[in-house]
Amino acid sequence: MNRLKQAISEKGVVISDGVLKVDSFLNHQIDPALTLEIGKEFAERFKNQEITKILTLESSGIAPSLTTALELGVPVIFSRKKKSLTLSSNLLTAKVYSYTKDETNEITVSKDFIVEGDKVLIIDDFLANGEAALGLTSLVKQANATVVGIGIVIEKSFQPGRDKLEQAGFHVESLARISSLKNKKVGFIEEMVANK
Amino acid sequence: MNRLKQAISEKGVVISDGVLKVDSFLNHQIDPALTLEIGKEFAERFKNQEITKILTLESSGIAPSLTTALELGVPVIFSRKKKSLTLSSNLLTAKVYSYTKDETNEITVSKDFIVEGDKVLIIDDFLANGEAALGLTSLVKQANATVVGIGIVIEKSFQPGRDKLEQAGFHVESLARISSLKNKKVGFIEEMVANK
Repeated sequence: MNRLKQAISEKGVVISDGVLKVDSFLNHQIDPALTLEIGKEFAERFKNQEITKILTLESSGIAPSLTTALELGVPVIFSRKKKSLTLSSNLLTAKVYSYTKDETNEITVSKDFIVEGDKVLIIDDFLANGEAALGLTSLVKQANATVVGIGIVIEKSFQPGRDKLEQAGFHVESLARISSLKNKKVGFIEEMVANK
Repeated sequence: MNRLKQAISEKGVVISDGVLKVDSFLNHQIDPALTLEIGKEFAERFKNQEITKILTLESSGIAPSLTTALELGVPVIFSRKKKSLTLSSNLLTAKVYSYTKDETNEITVSKDFIVEGDKVLIIDDFLANGEAALGLTSLVKQANATVVGIGIVIEKSFQPGRDKLEQAGFHVESLARISSLKNKKVGFIEEMVANK
């Protein structure tokens, strides 16, 4: 998605070889027009999957999930992050380890909203080690629902997340795939398919 | 806003005299079509204010802020909640006491995104005691920017938040004003003005 790559190139800040800051349009300040395009692109890529729900993780996944949901006409559910387990019989929970913060969070979703038979599209802002996405797939499985795909805004392709998700059998679509952040420069993987 | 009131009446769950759960369309699962209408209504109510930014609080404020931003063509910034202060010279911070959780959180926003001269619309999902909204106004003031209004999806009018905000000189627009949650029933304040 060219407009997204352009925003990353122009406004992204490379903090280190592993860390890209996109606070000015995705993670803290949100560019609504770009987010709308991101949603249209996800909807286009997953349009034949008969999606019934979109599942994401608070907070940065909410905006691109909402614009995708507007296109597809399905609800968004955002999973909540908590440091400690809230004991509730009505929650599905999964543990997610964050390499960045070196801490494990519990992510939760109500059993009322992901239910048996649901065809769920998972959306997240970043894919690095894949821990958050795998946690979300675990919530869907616990509900006896199906993950029909995983949509990622920015994939750090030099980290193992995508491989882990594909090895687990999931269909991953990433709108921008970053091959390297070395020397303070963002390198992209150019896809073979026509890529807007 | 009739469609919002209808959703509250039909899908809201009154937990106690003070607590209304709207997890099925606003706070955990998001109804995208309703959220789009909410955004259009906020945009209509604040259209003459020359708004340059929308400021909200993660996580539940993000969706209605984004649909408002799509209408107004301005960026959204979502303030982050943290239990402990992150020392950073580039952050504006305010303390927000939560009556529900009986804890004080630090809310933060980068100095890069709310700047002198900005005309800021604050949006939040709920107004009860007004602590979160007042914290957001404090961030705007610290940046030498102006709060041009506060848009609330659901106001619990039997709690003191609105009075506090109006006494501090802010213009508040709430799309649904709840007069009472007694006897497990949601009562609304009917506005004198034509109210969609």
